Amino acid sequence: MATVVTAPRGMRDFLPAEKARRDHVLGVIRGVYTRHGFDEIETPVVEDASRLHAGLGGDNEKLAFAVMRRGLTVEDLRVAEAPLDLADLGLRFDLTVPLARFYASHRSELPTVFRSVQIAPVWRAERPQKGRYRQFVQCDIDILGEAGPLAEIELIRATTDAVDALGITGTTIRVNDRRILVALLGSWGVDGPDADAALVVVDKLDKIGPDGVARELVALPGLAGHDASELEAVLRDLATADWDSVVGADWLDAEAFGDLQALRAALPGVRLQFDPTLVRGMGYYTGTIFEVAHPDFGYSLGGGGRYDGMIGRFLGQDVPAVGFSLGFERLVDLVTLPEDATADAVVLVHDRDVPPARLAALKQEVLAGHARVRLERRTKNMKNLLAGLAAAGFTAFATVDTDSTLEDLAFRPLE
Amino acid sequence: MATVVTAPRGMRDFLPAEKARRDHVLGVIRGVYTRHGFDEIETPVVEDASRLHAGLGGDNEKLAFAVMRRGLTVEDLRVAEAPLDLADLGLRFDLTVPLARFYASHRSELPTVFRSVQIAPVWRAERPQKGRYRQFVQCDIDILGEAGPLAEIELIRATTDAVDALGITGTTIRVNDRRILVALLGSWGVDGPDADAALVVVDKLDKIGPDGVARELVALPGLAGHDASELEAVLRDLATADWDSVVGADWLDAEAFGDLQALRAALPGVRLQFDPTLVRGMGYYTGTIFEVAHPDFGYSLGGGGRYDGMIGRFLGQDVPAVGFSLGFERLVDLVTLPEDATADAVVLVHDRDVPPARLAALKQEVLAGHARVRLERRTKNMKNLLAGLAAAGFTAFATVDTDSTLEDLAFRPLE
Repeated sequence: MATVVTAPRGMRDFLPAEKARRDHVLGVIRGVYTRHGFDEIETPVVEDASRLHAGLGGDNEKLAFAVMRRGLTVEDLRVAEAPLDLADLGLRFDLTVPLARFYASHRSELPTVFRSVQIAPVWRAERPQKGRYRQFVQCDIDILGEAGPLAEIELIRATTDAVDALGITGTTIRVNDRRILVALLGSWGVDGPDADAALVVVDKLDKIGPDGVARELVALPGLAGHDASELEAVLRDLATADWDSVVGADWLDAEAFGDLQALRAALPGVRLQFDPTLVRGMGYYTGTIFEVAHPDFGYSLGGGGRYDGMIGRFLGQDVPAVGFSLGFERLVDLVTLPEDATADAVVLVHDRDVPPARLAALKQEVLAGHARVRLERRTKNMKNLLAGLAAAGFTAFATVDTDSTLEDLAFRPLE
Repeated sequence: MATVVTAPRGMRDFLPAEKARRDHVLGVIRGVYTRHGFDEIETPVVEDASRLHAGLGGDNEKLAFAVMRRGLTVEDLRVAEAPLDLADLGLRFDLTVPLARFYASHRSELPTVFRSVQIAPVWRAERPQKGRYRQFVQCDIDILGEAGPLAEIELIRATTDAVDALGITGTTIRVNDRRILVALLGSWGVDGPDADAALVVVDKLDKIGPDGVARELVALPGLAGHDASELEAVLRDLATADWDSVVGADWLDAEAFGDLQALRAALPGVRLQFDPTLVRGMGYYTGTIFEVAHPDFGYSLGGGGRYDGMIGRFLGQDVPAVGFSLGFERLVDLVTLPEDATADAVVLVHDRDVPPARLAALKQEVLAGHARVRLERRTKNMKNLLAGLAAAGFTAFATVDTDSTLEDLAFRPLE
C-alpha cells in the first residue's frame, strides 16, 4: 500500500521547527491584540452552505470547498440539479462571514461594542502556486457596534503595534475611503453597477499601470465616451497623490477626506499614507479602507475597512463594523525568531542497554531541574544527532550509562 | 434575511471566556508535552479521501465528512456509482491516520525515534448528543520508532504529568495487553474473526455487565458451545481482577503480563491498574493498551496503546508506534481556571463626547504601564457593565472625561 503520501494539493504539513515558528508569531499577534482589549472567539471550521453562499463573500464564495450532505443515496445524485445541491456545509473561506453569523447568534451575550480576535485557518480552492495555499491562517480583528472613528483608530493602532512587536519595520498604512472612490467615479459620470465594474479595473493600477487601467476603463459601457489618454493622465496624478496634493481637487469628497485627515491626526507615529486609488476587492466595504504596505513587497501584508451593512444581514438590522485582517502566511516569513535566552532544554543520550525503567526515572529527576528533557538513543553519527538537537532548540546534553545517577550527569552545551 | 444563525448542527461557537479557558487548558497540556521532549506538528484538516478510507480508522471511517471534488458537472452526478465517488477529500476523523501519512512523507527529516504532539480538531458525523460533538479537539502524543517499553513509559508519564498539571487528581491508568485478550479468547477456543467479534462484546462489560456480555458471547458462532453462566462467572472474576489475583491463571499470557509488571515497576507514583477486560475499540492495537480513568466518571479521559503495524502501512514497512490521546472536551470541563494573580487588565470608561483621538492617545499611554487596556463607553447600567468586565478578567477601571490626562485617572478595583 505504498502510495502518494504528501499533504493534499495546495496544503502543507508543518514540521516541528516550522510549527514552533508559526506558533511563536501567532502568540505575539494574539498577545498584542489582547493587550489592546480585544477578545478571542472561535467558530466551527464549517458553516451551513446556504450561509457561505449568501452573497457576502464576493468571489471567494466560488472558491469554497463543499462538504457533502450525510446519508445521500445514488437516487439523490440522479435528481440533483447541480453539484452544490448535494452539499449542506462548506469550509469557511474567510473569518468575516462566520463572525457575522456568530454575532447574530450571540449578540445578547456580548458587550455593546464588541472587539473580536479570530486567529484561525480558512480554505479556498485556488489554483496552488508559490506563496498561495488552499489552507492558510488569517488573523482578524473586528470592532462591531462602534460607528465612530474610534474603531478605525483602535484597529490601526493594534495592527501596527502587532507588526512592530514582530520586529517588522518600515511598514506604511495606505488609507482611502469608499466614498472618495464613489465620488471620483461620479465625477466621470459613472455610478451604480458601472461604478462597481470600474472599481475592479482601478484595483489593477499596481499591476497594469495607468495606461492599462485607462485602456480597460474606456472599454467599459459606462465610460465609453471618455478619452483614454485623458483618463491616463488623471490616473497618473492619482497614483502619486498624497495628503497635500489632492486638497481642493474637484473630484474629492471633502467630508470623507476630512474624516481621513482626522484619523491621521489621531494616529501619531503611524505612517498613514493617503491613496485615492486604493480599492480593496470586497464589495461590502462602505467607508474607510486600509492596507499594510511594506517597501520590500509588491503585495500588502494585510488590510481591512468599514463594512457597516454586512454584519446586520443575519440580524435584519445594521450594525456598524470595521475589520483588519493580517495576512499571516506572508508575515511569518518576515519574522526572525528571537534566541530564547532562558531556554533550558537538555538531552540525555543513552545506549541501547540502559534499562528503560532507569532511563525513565532519570528523566523525571532531570525534569525537576530543567525546562525540557529529551531522551535520545546513541547513534553512530553523534555529530549529526547533536547538530539536529541543537537545531531543535536543545541547549545541552549528557550521556547516560547503565549505572548513571543524577549526580553523574555531566551536561555539555550544544551549539 | 433574518435566518437561523446558530453554528452547524453538533458544532459549537466559543465565546471569549470559554475560548480563553480552552486555550489555557491546551497551553498547560502543550507545555507538559514539550517539557517531556515531544515536538508539535500540524497537518491539514483534510486528507485525501482514499487515505481516510484505507481501513485504518475502524468505524470512524464511516463518520468522515466528505469534501466534494472541484469542477463537478451534473453529468458527473448522473454517472457516479456512489456518493463518495464525488469526493476527493474528507475532514480527518482522528489524528492517527494523518500522523501515519505525515511520517511516511517526512521520515527522512525526523529523528530516528520521533515523539510527536498533535493538538487539533477532528470531525465525526455522529448523532449529536450531550457531551458529543461533530467537531472536537484531540490531544495526541505518539512515539514512533521505539519498539521497547521506554515508549510506553514516557507516554504514560507525560500523560499523567499533564493531567496532574491541570489539577485533576485521583486518576488511574488502566492497562492491558492485546496479547492477553487474544490468549484469553484462545483459552475459550476462539480465534481469528470470531475473536474480533468476541472482543467487541467484551468491550461492553462496563455497560451491560458480566451477565449481558456472557449472553451476547454465547450467541456468537465461535462461542456457540459455551455455557453462559460459566462465562459469566469467569467475566465476573476478570472484572475485579488485579495484579495479584491473576497470577498463575491458566488463561494468562505470562510474557505479556510480565511486560505489564515491568511497566508498573518503571512508573512509581502512577496508579497503574491491571484490567484484563480492557479492550479499546481500534482494531489496529497490537500490544499494550491503556486508558485514563477517573473515579467520578463512567467514561475514560483518554487512552491509547501500541499499534506497530499501522504507521508502516503508507511506507510499506513496519514502524513500531505507541500513542496516547487525551479527550480534551472531557478534560476541559474538569479544570478550574486559576486566578491570575499577575493580571493587570484595566478599563477606561468614557462618555460619548470624549474625542476619539484623545481616547486613543490616552489608551496608548495607559498601555505603556498596564498589560491590557479596554475602552468602554459609559452605559446607563454601570453596575452590569462593570460586573461583565470583571467576569472577562479585567481588574480595575477609571473614568475618562473630555479633558482627562493620564495623571487624572483614578483606577478603582473591579470585583
